[in-house]
Amino acid sequence: MFKNILENVRNKFPLIHNITNYVTVNDCANILLACGSSPIMSDDLDDVVDITSICGGLNINIGTLNKNTIPSMFAAGKKANELSHPVVLDPVGVGASTLRTETAKNLLKEIKFSVIKGNISEIKTLAFGSGTTKGVDADVADTVTSETLPGVVAFAKKFAKETGAVIVITGATDIITDSAKAIAVRNGHPMMSKITGTGCMLSALIAAFVASNSDNIYEATVTAVCVMGLCGEKAFARMKKEDGNASFRNYLIDSVYNLDGESLERGAKYEIY
Amino acid sequence: MFKNILENVRNKFPLIHNITNYVTVNDCANILLACGSSPIMSDDLDDVVDITSICGGLNINIGTLNKNTIPSMFAAGKKANELSHPVVLDPVGVGASTLRTETAKNLLKEIKFSVIKGNISEIKTLAFGSGTTKGVDADVADTVTSETLPGVVAFAKKFAKETGAVIVITGATDIITDSAKAIAVRNGHPMMSKITGTGCMLSALIAAFVASNSDNIYEATVTAVCVMGLCGEKAFARMKKEDGNASFRNYLIDSVYNLDGESLERGAKYEIY
Amino acid sequence: MFKNILENVRNKFPLIHNITNYVTVNDCANILLACGSSPIMSDDLDDVVDITSICGGLNINIGTLNKNTIPSMFAAGKKANELSHPVVLDPVGVGASTLRTETAKNLLKEIKFSVIKGNISEIKTLAFGSGTTKGVDADVADTVTSETLPGVVAFAKKFAKETGAVIVITGATDIITDSAKAIAVRNGHPMMSKITGTGCMLSALIAAFVASNSDNIYEATVTAVCVMGLCGEKAFARMKKEDGNASFRNYLIDSVYNLDGESLERGAKYEIY
Repeated sequence: MFKNILENVRNKFPLIHNITNYVTVNDCANILLACGSSPIMSDDLDDVVDITSICGGLNINIGTLNKNTIPSMFAAGKKANELSHPVVLDPVGVGASTLRTETAKNLLKEIKFSVIKGNISEIKTLAFGSGTTKGVDADVADTVTSETLPGVVAFAKKFAKETGAVIVITGATDIITDSAKAIAVRNGHPMMSKITGTGCMLSALIAAFVASNSDNIYEATVTAVCVMGLCGEKAFARMKKEDGNASFRNYLIDSVYNLDGESLERGAKYEIY
Repeated sequence: MFKNILENVRNKFPLIHNITNYVTVNDCANILLACGSSPIMSDDLDDVVDITSICGGLNINIGTLNKNTIPSMFAAGKKANELSHPVVLDPVGVGASTLRTETAKNLLKEIKFSVIKGNISEIKTLAFGSGTTKGVDADVADTVTSETLPGVVAFAKKFAKETGAVIVITGATDIITDSAKAIAVRNGHPMMSKITGTGCMLSALIAAFVASNSDNIYEATVTAVCVMGLCGEKAFARMKKEDGNASFRNYLIDSVYNLDGESLERGAKYEIY
Repeated sequence: MFKNILENVRNKFPLIHNITNYVTVNDCANILLACGSSPIMSDDLDDVVDITSICGGLNINIGTLNKNTIPSMFAAGKKANELSHPVVLDPVGVGASTLRTETAKNLLKEIKFSVIKGNISEIKTLAFGSGTTKGVDADVADTVTSETLPGVVAFAKKFAKETGAVIVITGATDIITDSAKAIAVRNGHPMMSKITGTGCMLSALIAAFVASNSDNIYEATVTAVCVMGLCGEKAFARMKKEDGNASFRNYLIDSVYNLDGESLERGAKYEIY
């Protein structure tokens, strides 16, 4: 499955429209190119409808949310919905400010998302309307353990049902569900939290994978999550004594570039729930 | 010729004002430093006239065009014209949206550009007023082949004459013309299309090269195009098994940093038309 | 001293709010993670007060100043002052435009800064109200030499007294003073001027170090300056023949990631004035 889904990305070379933050935008562009996709960034209200129309998918990330581009997110999202293009939401830091929380809630009301990806604090904030997000990382109190995992899966399934979106909860274990099915992905490495943009890059990858596998949104999302985690492991394995997080970032993107379907099939670690 | 032009950049250390997109801006800054220039980025209407006045050249790139900075492009461009500073235009994605197309057309009307650089789809859009641009890459239908090359050179010469600018059409073969003279540069590597920002970095380099060789805009532009392509080849030659596009980006900028005049003279591959 | 201060950063994992330029923002985020801190970027007026409230320190950098985010700088700065969070100012390019000079002067009037860091031209502009800044680098006429050093230290002490801030003047020799004490740091490498963002990354580091050592702002600032300079030396020592400024940037951030207290104690080179 993973192999075919990855090959669809590489063969279809989907153009992905990103309305994203200015911190990690270059990494998002390069990881999209690495997986076999093509990025375009556009966030002006007078530009986004034209741009999203020529793309295969839309990735909305609120990491450096500002009022100039909020209307652009709505306009692009509605156009993508109209064209049946998949739309991914990365609600970075939702719960950390009223602007982020209100904007994300309104986006959920007006846009139909194919996939919503966040850490547990972000997804709880979206589901319950307020949260305990501390910045852009998950709150320690929200950490998913083997004890709390079944409850978190049940919560994610319920939220997937409510939103009609595939829900991805990232963490040491990543949970993906479309409400009927659920999976826990065990790939990844703690080093991934030592660089900025791992989450943003994952959202971008998901957008490329679902755009290239639009009949198979759930499996495409699971594949993108496995790709990111596995490439994090491969990047860490490549680190030499003097390497730190800057080299790790390069190795991570390089790993996505070099990943083949067979390695992905062998390396993916997951449990079906 | 190439050697002297490169040495002029390194000796004159020109300050280049960039109004550019937020995707590849860091790479543009670092490649300007690599070639021996110094970058400054400024895009607020109240800031750009002061900044462009202390610089030696201006680089305008519409990659993430937004309405806040469009008036800044006009104000900076007019000031640079007034001061006889060279101005470079990189019409990223022109043809992909009305905003980009209209803005680029208006820029051409009101600003005198020294150099205009784009892929074949972008330059056609500028010349004919509408185009078939699909995102930020050239449309496949527009690909320049050995059969179509003479026609493309003739078209580029005509557009150079109309605009008074040196025209650069990038692709597997890069075409540069000032309407009287024309050259096809055969440097470069397909890997350059696997990172974001190759085109943006080239525009920035051109701005530095023409600012340091203002009596010789055409030759300076040809040199910058050769530098970029040759350094792409050198960067690819340096790649090891596990390297991907992230490492390639670093190697590309590193190659510009380490390039000397002799290697450039030896490595430049071109045909005069 | 240095060792304890560094360990406080690594143990306290402070969240730092950055209102900064879009050129070097990714490097700032990654160097904050490298030193053991956590970055958050937010610059919308409706977002910054909430965000700064959950952070431990605020870093204001005017590198790509624009009118949308100037009110955000004031709002965040005032909130941080109210909460007694340390605030760092990096007046990038002050003196190069009226907008930058006026904004920086107004920020100094309305916000209490813990640390102000700039090159000699920038700090002179702040102190005297107008300056000879040429872009983002110090003017050659302002270069600090062994002859002019005592005068520069006296000037910096006076400005520290006037502002109540620790003043950092960066250059081949870095000068740090809190008006009573002063130190000249001799770490660093000329290669650091061949990448964009060394200064911005230093401001971000200072914010993390003072946020984790709020009883000890002066020593924390000195430590951050030594860390940056020493890691510049280590990064240069790691360079191989084909490496250039792009690799150097990665090695610099990697060095901060791998730095331990003992190496820092051994490597710090300074003279107390």
